[in-house]
Amino acid sequence: MLNVGVIGTGMIGQDHIRRMTTVLSGVAVTAVSDVDSAVAADVGGRIGATVHATGEDVVADPNVDAVLVCSWGPTHEQYVLAAIAAGKPVFCEKPLATTQDACLRIVEAEVAYGSRLVQVGYMRRFDFAYRQLKLTLESGEIGSPLMMHCAHRNASVPPFYQKEMAITDTAVHEIDMVRWMFGEEIAAARVLVPRKSRNGGDLQDPLLLILEMASGVIVDVELSVNIRYGYDIRGEIVGEDGTAALGSLSPLEIRTAKQLVTPVPADWRERFLQAYDVELQEWVHALALGGRPLGPTAWDGYAAAVVSDAGVAALRTGERVEVTLAEQPKLYLGVSA
Amino acid sequence: MLNVGVIGTGMIGQDHIRRMTTVLSGVAVTAVSDVDSAVAADVGGRIGATVHATGEDVVADPNVDAVLVCSWGPTHEQYVLAAIAAGKPVFCEKPLATTQDACLRIVEAEVAYGSRLVQVGYMRRFDFAYRQLKLTLESGEIGSPLMMHCAHRNASVPPFYQKEMAITDTAVHEIDMVRWMFGEEIAAARVLVPRKSRNGGDLQDPLLLILEMASGVIVDVELSVNIRYGYDIRGEIVGEDGTAALGSLSPLEIRTAKQLVTPVPADWRERFLQAYDVELQEWVHALALGGRPLGPTAWDGYAAAVVSDAGVAALRTGERVEVTLAEQPKLYLGVSA
Amino acid sequence: MLNVGVIGTGMIGQDHIRRMTTVLSGVAVTAVSDVDSAVAADVGGRIGATVHATGEDVVADPNVDAVLVCSWGPTHEQYVLAAIAAGKPVFCEKPLATTQDACLRIVEAEVAYGSRLVQVGYMRRFDFAYRQLKLTLESGEIGSPLMMHCAHRNASVPPFYQKEMAITDTAVHEIDMVRWMFGEEIAAARVLVPRKSRNGGDLQDPLLLILEMASGVIVDVELSVNIRYGYDIRGEIVGEDGTAALGSLSPLEIRTAKQLVTPVPADWRERFLQAYDVELQEWVHALALGGRPLGPTAWDGYAAAVVSDAGVAALRTGERVEVTLAEQPKLYLGVSA
Amino acid sequence: MLNVGVIGTGMIGQDHIRRMTTVLSGVAVTAVSDVDSAVAADVGGRIGATVHATGEDVVADPNVDAVLVCSWGPTHEQYVLAAIAAGKPVFCEKPLATTQDACLRIVEAEVAYGSRLVQVGYMRRFDFAYRQLKLTLESGEIGSPLMMHCAHRNASVPPFYQKEMAITDTAVHEIDMVRWMFGEEIAAARVLVPRKSRNGGDLQDPLLLILEMASGVIVDVELSVNIRYGYDIRGEIVGEDGTAALGSLSPLEIRTAKQLVTPVPADWRERFLQAYDVELQEWVHALALGGRPLGPTAWDGYAAAVVSDAGVAALRTGERVEVTLAEQPKLYLGVSA
Repeated sequence: MLNVGVIGTGMIGQDHIRRMTTVLSGVAVTAVSDVDSAVAADVGGRIGATVHATGEDVVADPNVDAVLVCSWGPTHEQYVLAAIAAGKPVFCEKPLATTQDACLRIVEAEVAYGSRLVQVGYMRRFDFAYRQLKLTLESGEIGSPLMMHCAHRNASVPPFYQKEMAITDTAVHEIDMVRWMFGEEIAAARVLVPRKSRNGGDLQDPLLLILEMASGVIVDVELSVNIRYGYDIRGEIVGEDGTAALGSLSPLEIRTAKQLVTPVPADWRERFLQAYDVELQEWVHALALGGRPLGPTAWDGYAAAVVSDAGVAALRTGERVEVTLAEQPKLYLGVSA
Repeated sequence: MLNVGVIGTGMIGQDHIRRMTTVLSGVAVTAVSDVDSAVAADVGGRIGATVHATGEDVVADPNVDAVLVCSWGPTHEQYVLAAIAAGKPVFCEKPLATTQDACLRIVEAEVAYGSRLVQVGYMRRFDFAYRQLKLTLESGEIGSPLMMHCAHRNASVPPFYQKEMAITDTAVHEIDMVRWMFGEEIAAARVLVPRKSRNGGDLQDPLLLILEMASGVIVDVELSVNIRYGYDIRGEIVGEDGTAALGSLSPLEIRTAKQLVTPVPADWRERFLQAYDVELQEWVHALALGGRPLGPTAWDGYAAAVVSDAGVAALRTGERVEVTLAEQPKLYLGVSA
Repeated sequence: MLNVGVIGTGMIGQDHIRRMTTVLSGVAVTAVSDVDSAVAADVGGRIGATVHATGEDVVADPNVDAVLVCSWGPTHEQYVLAAIAAGKPVFCEKPLATTQDACLRIVEAEVAYGSRLVQVGYMRRFDFAYRQLKLTLESGEIGSPLMMHCAHRNASVPPFYQKEMAITDTAVHEIDMVRWMFGEEIAAARVLVPRKSRNGGDLQDPLLLILEMASGVIVDVELSVNIRYGYDIRGEIVGEDGTAALGSLSPLEIRTAKQLVTPVPADWRERFLQAYDVELQEWVHALALGGRPLGPTAWDGYAAAVVSDAGVAALRTGERVEVTLAEQPKLYLGVSA
Repeated sequence: MLNVGVIGTGMIGQDHIRRMTTVLSGVAVTAVSDVDSAVAADVGGRIGATVHATGEDVVADPNVDAVLVCSWGPTHEQYVLAAIAAGKPVFCEKPLATTQDACLRIVEAEVAYGSRLVQVGYMRRFDFAYRQLKLTLESGEIGSPLMMHCAHRNASVPPFYQKEMAITDTAVHEIDMVRWMFGEEIAAARVLVPRKSRNGGDLQDPLLLILEMASGVIVDVELSVNIRYGYDIRGEIVGEDGTAALGSLSPLEIRTAKQLVTPVPADWRERFLQAYDVELQEWVHALALGGRPLGPTAWDGYAAAVVSDAGVAALRTGERVEVTLAEQPKLYLGVSA
């Protein structure tokens, strides 16, 4: 049984606690903290976990084997660094940190520690359909990859959603996914700006993000975050000899009113619920078996931050922006992208 | 934490043990037994469970809260009756028992006990697609049901598979599913015999099973158990105003070699893996919350046995065979079919 | 240029005249007649065709190379026989005649004439999707056929539609199709009667027709003629090694309002418009090239009538009814079914 | 009956002659010419058409009502101008002419003539699926258009196919299609160059063409001309409230060998055969009814040439290239784009 301490008991923290206490195997939540101590007390009380005043206290708790960071983005760095300092595995929800410098400090701390402790919460790598897509690519069935067409569509976004969040919050999932899918870094980003949807108010929506992989593979990503009809994630890899795409995954076909209707997921929960379960279950099993997480690394978190910054610059300037990464430490060689 | 004792540690028993120890939440396997004591010792040893000489000993173990019966079919009755006698919840893999009389004895024992303890392992009720299909039917979107077209296709069956197993082992899943889907009993069965596939050797394969529901809904079920191309479960309900069918569920679309290709599951594991997980997780949660199982009841197991017998008679005689059930005890009113 | 005389200028006659004058190549309409002479005068006048008092006059017109019979069913026999007597090719809309005896008299007249003059208007044989299905079957890709699942769904039927028309008017298309698809006769028919749709008023709708082919292939046909949602024709052949089915043929996929929507045809015109064009164009070309029609023969018309009668008897009695055909004349050997 | 003279009896000319003589209604081919007089004599002889020495002679033939130009591209201008000079309707295969200046000369000649005589052979506007797509867009069901994703995939291209032909020969169909689909001009073009497929030898294949419509709609077009698996034309319009895409159009679904297989067209003939028929049939009917063609105009041919040049410049320079059109004459107002 892996004893996990959860830092941050807001919406996502509570969802992970529900997952660990009622869905997953081999894990218990033994300690919690939150910036709002009343919430922490309430959530912790219901599951019988120790309620700490600070995230650092959670890390230090001897009854905590591993840490889950679900707090506000700007605090991620300090808690992840605390976990590394304590030599405890830490799963950090995305983003790893809010600046690339902060991400790099985490990378450096982990390298100094000498083995991997950090996993970042990019759940698409655990989605069955994306995994099948990667297996198909690796089988050689469609030849070497040349392009990928992606779409990331949300029915709507909350009022606080701002222009650059299309890159930093939405496209960042695609950024991590293509690095993993093609096993290589992104070399440059560009953003094209179509006419604006009336559904987005002042927001510039949609956008067309173009990513160039190191090998020359070009990825185009439609970002439409107010498209009303539902949550729709699309991906088609164009290879030399054919293409492979995410399938329909539809459980139903309904024929009524002159139409064949196939339901579309309402939101990311519906689409990726299972991926979140698999993500955390595999993390638990990996720690139980080998003590080392196998999912997205601190380096992946850092690279996503750098590409995300390039995307934002591309959006602001209208120019093609090259991505410049620090040298990759050996610790991450052969691991994910 | 629910402590479960497993009677029968063969293939299916081991699979459920794997599920309970590495996939599900809130459950531990604390005791095992098997007719082959060496196997029981090996399996039990690996997970630290007490190894008992008999299934009755498993039931009696004070460290066992609930029992899972995965032994050979002819032994199901005795272990389920033992669990009822001990007042312990028991999950019994299908069939509940190998004769309708034995099933009825279980029903009577449970009725005498006074509340439900038994759940039978019909996993389709826990499959996401079938559940969506039922919700669609119940929404009234397609009007009242009139017919259902089903197909149950296996790539191949083992050499010991015999003619009547197409009804008793294969169609029985469809039999339970339609009782649950339409919330009513099956009134009659008929079997039509098409020309025989060369793939089945001496076996009469395929068959066309026709079920008549009490309300007059007619269900046709293609049973093809050597169709080579894969495992394919189809279902389309024809309503007054439209139809609702199981969708493609395909994670991938691959375009190569002049074709758009969508992979088909190889076997029932691939198709229903998640349903098995949900089935047992919901059982665990139901026992934890209310002490009473919510899945297929002993009555469902009995009804499946009676319809299955009618199907076998229909296959032997070529005639339409009516289904005659005992009177349904009040214990089962409003529960499933 | 083939000069065609049209007997019967009602709805279907006018549609074929439109087809021959504005869609097809190599054909002109030179003469018409109708029981309602005013309609004939009007239709004929607009296209500059000679207007005759009787169908026999159309047949006799020296400026008529071939005859199209689109009159009321009970008159088909006399006009087809007149055309045979005159040695002129005749395309007769379905049914060939309204009784099997009348059909047999036509067969006998044609046999006496010594070569094929008659084609019957079963247009599915000219539908691209059905033709591809037949080619796939004949390629051996799915092995020998064992079963076929069909559905014939109409959004609604007119008030004069009566119970037996589900067989004689609706299912007759399926009856001809399976004879052609499998290249063999139908041996027996059976009709199962599900609970009744409220949409059909007094009509018994839907029905499940079961056809047994001479080789033992079993065909089940859902007949739903008030299903509201549209016109939907389905067919899946189950072979020894796989299945082949009519595809979606959908020109569009629309994603709106939480759904992926694929339009369904409203009626048979929309679904089979092109098949009607191909049917008549191939007839014109066949007569131009070889003088002999290549489509469904008088024998096919006769066989459809016999099976249709068996279907009606099966519906009335609830029994399995065997199909007994006259001996097939050599004239039809190797032609279609 | 419309009497058509065909200039150029090579592959495409012969195909149109076949179409006019054996598929379409209301048209006859009365005269032909070809730069290879032996071919012209052979083709003309078989159909009983007058064989002329030059295209100008075909235009001048009093037995020619309308002209079809199917000769080598560089000769299009002279024959189209000759037809305009003679006041005869002329259908010119794409391109209208090989330079934008030549296209403009044709536009000016037609404007001077005072009414439209010219139609250019962009057949996608006559494809059923594209037409349904346009109707859906115009219905407002998906809101105003914001983006369109297209793919144009060929299994392979002939050895003489050169880099810029991906724009001038392949993408030109997409260029005309989007002008017609959105009813507006293209404002700028850009070409992104992914890593190269080994299947294309020295050819830079694939390409990603980005078109900006005047309203700001952005169109991305994948151009893959050696993708081996088949001919595949894709298009999805992203609107404010949803998307509309070309559907699968598949006549078949085959389940064999662990897969659900849907055939893909082998080449453009298979995909667009019917569109070619409709294109020419509607031209014939339009001339018969009103004397004026309703399809793509000389202006459309000119605009396609200008955008095509911009695309080639974008490919050469790697830059975004703006499209500058002459002022549109009133003759073309409200006609197509």
